[in-house]
Amino acid sequence: MELTGLSIIGMQRSTTGGRIFTATNPANGAPLPGEFHSASPADVENAAQLATKAFTSYAQWSGKRRAALLEHIAQFLESHTATIVKRANLETALPIARLEGELARTCFQLRLQGESAANGLFAGARIDHAQPGRTPIPKPDLRSMMRPIGPVAVFGASNFPLAFSVAGGDTAAALAAGCPVIVKAHPAHPGTSEIVGRVIQEAMHECDAPEGLFSLLFDVGYNVGASLVQHHLIKAVAFTGSRRGGRALMHLATVREEAIPVFAEMSSVNPVFIFRGALAHKADEIANGLQASVSLGVGQFCTNPGLVFIESCKGAARLIDKLKELIAASPAGTMLSPDIYATYQQTVDKFSQITGVRLLAVGKQVSGQASSAMFAADIATFLDNRNLMDEVFGPSTLLIECNSRKELLATAEQLEGQLTATIHATPDELSELRSFVEVLSTKAGRLLFGGFPTGVEVAHAMTHGGPYPATSDGRSTSVGTRAAERFLRPITYQNFPDAALPQELQEANPLKILRLTDGAWKIS
Amino acid sequence: MELTGLSIIGMQRSTTGGRIFTATNPANGAPLPGEFHSASPADVENAAQLATKAFTSYAQWSGKRRAALLEHIAQFLESHTATIVKRANLETALPIARLEGELARTCFQLRLQGESAANGLFAGARIDHAQPGRTPIPKPDLRSMMRPIGPVAVFGASNFPLAFSVAGGDTAAALAAGCPVIVKAHPAHPGTSEIVGRVIQEAMHECDAPEGLFSLLFDVGYNVGASLVQHHLIKAVAFTGSRRGGRALMHLATVREEAIPVFAEMSSVNPVFIFRGALAHKADEIANGLQASVSLGVGQFCTNPGLVFIESCKGAARLIDKLKELIAASPAGTMLSPDIYATYQQTVDKFSQITGVRLLAVGKQVSGQASSAMFAADIATFLDNRNLMDEVFGPSTLLIECNSRKELLATAEQLEGQLTATIHATPDELSELRSFVEVLSTKAGRLLFGGFPTGVEVAHAMTHGGPYPATSDGRSTSVGTRAAERFLRPITYQNFPDAALPQELQEANPLKILRLTDGAWKIS
Repeated sequence: MELTGLSIIGMQRSTTGGRIFTATNPANGAPLPGEFHSASPADVENAAQLATKAFTSYAQWSGKRRAALLEHIAQFLESHTATIVKRANLETALPIARLEGELARTCFQLRLQGESAANGLFAGARIDHAQPGRTPIPKPDLRSMMRPIGPVAVFGASNFPLAFSVAGGDTAAALAAGCPVIVKAHPAHPGTSEIVGRVIQEAMHECDAPEGLFSLLFDVGYNVGASLVQHHLIKAVAFTGSRRGGRALMHLATVREEAIPVFAEMSSVNPVFIFRGALAHKADEIANGLQASVSLGVGQFCTNPGLVFIESCKGAARLIDKLKELIAASPAGTMLSPDIYATYQQTVDKFSQITGVRLLAVGKQVSGQASSAMFAADIATFLDNRNLMDEVFGPSTLLIECNSRKELLATAEQLEGQLTATIHATPDELSELRSFVEVLSTKAGRLLFGGFPTGVEVAHAMTHGGPYPATSDGRSTSVGTRAAERFLRPITYQNFPDAALPQELQEANPLKILRLTDGAWKIS
Repeated sequence: MELTGLSIIGMQRSTTGGRIFTATNPANGAPLPGEFHSASPADVENAAQLATKAFTSYAQWSGKRRAALLEHIAQFLESHTATIVKRANLETALPIARLEGELARTCFQLRLQGESAANGLFAGARIDHAQPGRTPIPKPDLRSMMRPIGPVAVFGASNFPLAFSVAGGDTAAALAAGCPVIVKAHPAHPGTSEIVGRVIQEAMHECDAPEGLFSLLFDVGYNVGASLVQHHLIKAVAFTGSRRGGRALMHLATVREEAIPVFAEMSSVNPVFIFRGALAHKADEIANGLQASVSLGVGQFCTNPGLVFIESCKGAARLIDKLKELIAASPAGTMLSPDIYATYQQTVDKFSQITGVRLLAVGKQVSGQASSAMFAADIATFLDNRNLMDEVFGPSTLLIECNSRKELLATAEQLEGQLTATIHATPDELSELRSFVEVLSTKAGRLLFGGFPTGVEVAHAMTHGGPYPATSDGRSTSVGTRAAERFLRPITYQNFPDAALPQELQEANPLKILRLTDGAWKIS
């Protein structure tokens, strides 16, 4: 596929004229083929107008028809696997096998959201029958269901060039919900974005989708993103990236006249709490798992475990010794971009200079590549330095040895919002930790007993979200089928004739979906 | 019950020292007994700290136990009906019968939310079983459910001194969800607020509720409200009131470090669309219903129909003539407060001066009371003056006669977000209006076929919300059982031992609630 570098506006391509940029191979710093043209204000306007027009028809598509569209996108992506993965590897330095896995995950997400739309999972149908004879006033017939919110602006993330980018989780969720999507491509993988965008465009064409249901805009700067968030026709925003980026979008949304929801998934250090009982028998196993989780993908995961609290004991010493060995032996790796690498280096240097913070181990060093790093601090140092809670994007972790269980429990209260929190303990210990678990549940969207937080399963029961700064709205998730709920709102139809109601609410329940009827769950 | 004028902080009362204010009888301008003391910054801090402490235990209360608490509050309110209604009548000039009805509604809301909590309606339980043998990596056991968000700040509304105030819908929803509540009392009905607050306090005591689960703060100014919205321990805000007030709270929330959701229900003109077919046979009936809806409660409802689009025809002329008569015969009424009355007068005067706007009828006039008003304008005038879409809080409505159905349909596209939109048409006409209904569904939270928007049924299928400026978050409702969802967030437990899980997620389903298990809805 020949790259054109042009934005995709519905079934058209943009014209040239905007600021031109190229992609860089992070493995060698060389520019990659393809010149990309930043979209113009007219392109943004066209995309928004087309999306709005597309919305009026797409919102009425049945769940089954949306599922067929998402299935087509998945199949078309699969048939372009080699092309997509090859370019993504050049643009991100992520290994081919990882990218193949990520493409499979992307297709799985599209299908799961599509099937869920087809099965009526998102309908949330409710019926309260009329009581015409009720006194003092009759009760009307009320029927409600979840309907799509409108065009959604999606911002591609740098660290998942497929699963959290052009055809990623946000796009799948929005399309399944019934919303048009305008993607702002991440400028670090524009070629991958164009290929995936064109594949989506083909699938849309194949399925007779209304023009403008999908657009993809390039920009090397911030204008296109800012215009999208502030455009009056955009009704929701989905973003995965840094705290700074997320806050900027949140701010832009507050100064527009019409308030809209901004779902930004931003920053998490994913604390791991390791108790004495777990250390007694599993110190080596935990050390192995932790090192693997810290180093996975050169630490470029939002669920990377950046903070580890350890209950002081013999096992703790063994764990730390083992970890030192493992981290020291960890290979260096190329990060997603030179900027990300530079920021990682700076943060590691900053950590090293904080009084009370000790660098326990550094991984193998290769020029231009990120080395794993492991720091330690005592609890007083940790509590005195709030910035030790800031996310470090890269293969680094900070160990805090706690002198008592009480000290360890006290740290939980101090945490900011997180995507995940992990507990290593015996089941007996866990049963003594009820109030600790309760506190953690107010801090994180996902609690793990054992294991490590990297590896986010795509499932109905997944929550990939958490209180600020993990996300801008701790009531949301960006992974799993609940992700579609971000783009839905309830609508009530009062005293409508049956024939004028959406099928989901018609008396005979033609779609055979679950409904809350007069307060009871029914499928017939 | 002797009024003390002191804020309620958990099981305590505040000290004095804050700015003192009294309530005024809007019927005669006379001050009412009772001196109320604005809460201090220390009071706000105490209430927030106590609420946070209460949250850790209350969040673990079963739905049944929460239901029992809400039932106690309802019973205690009922046993104080005479006292509450008498004071509310003095403070608001709302008639006794209306206030008795509103108290019954308030108790119904408390019970419905409580029963729904007991029945597991809010749990949203989901289970995805582990697949230990899955390749390339095992699938973990994932279980998610909705958990309470934390302490909620509730702002009492002036126009429903019971149902949208201290023990109103927001309080019922938050308590049912598992969240502590701190109410900022509306300064126009502080005596009613104190009585209701003390009744709640008694019920809390009776049910061994943790101290701080409920607090009630007085303030004649804005300091207490602002401090609550900005307090780091407050995790959500619920407000019903003006667009200006709602925007101010939204703004305060954006400048705090931790982003939290603000649910403000603000401003709606509740358009009514009347088509030729309905006019042919029902012009008189519609005129009667419309006049009643416009004048109900001196027009002081957020669902007051402020904008009526009429398809030009013989029936239209008949409707308008009939309406003129009815409006001219409408009695004047005392508004909730002298400020509200003054604002209504100013807005009506402002409307009268807009070129192209004609005052068609004015109701009976009594000094110091609000008269009903009916204006008319042609469509060009309407489209040229965006401020004709601003809410007029009072018994006024604006008729727009449209020369064609096409003109009528075109207006829908121009509307801001609304709580409701109403269509009067024959079923045959409605079947021709699919795309019009689809557009309206993007503009309002509730669509009515026939009838009038005032009278918001409390039900599972009710939506009392809509896109901005109707609310700050068009994905929310402040009436009906979905209102509790505003204060819930999903939490996932990964690989937890069964005994350490909340009952809602334990394998045996001890609570017999509906769960999405491996993608299928199950109750066993």
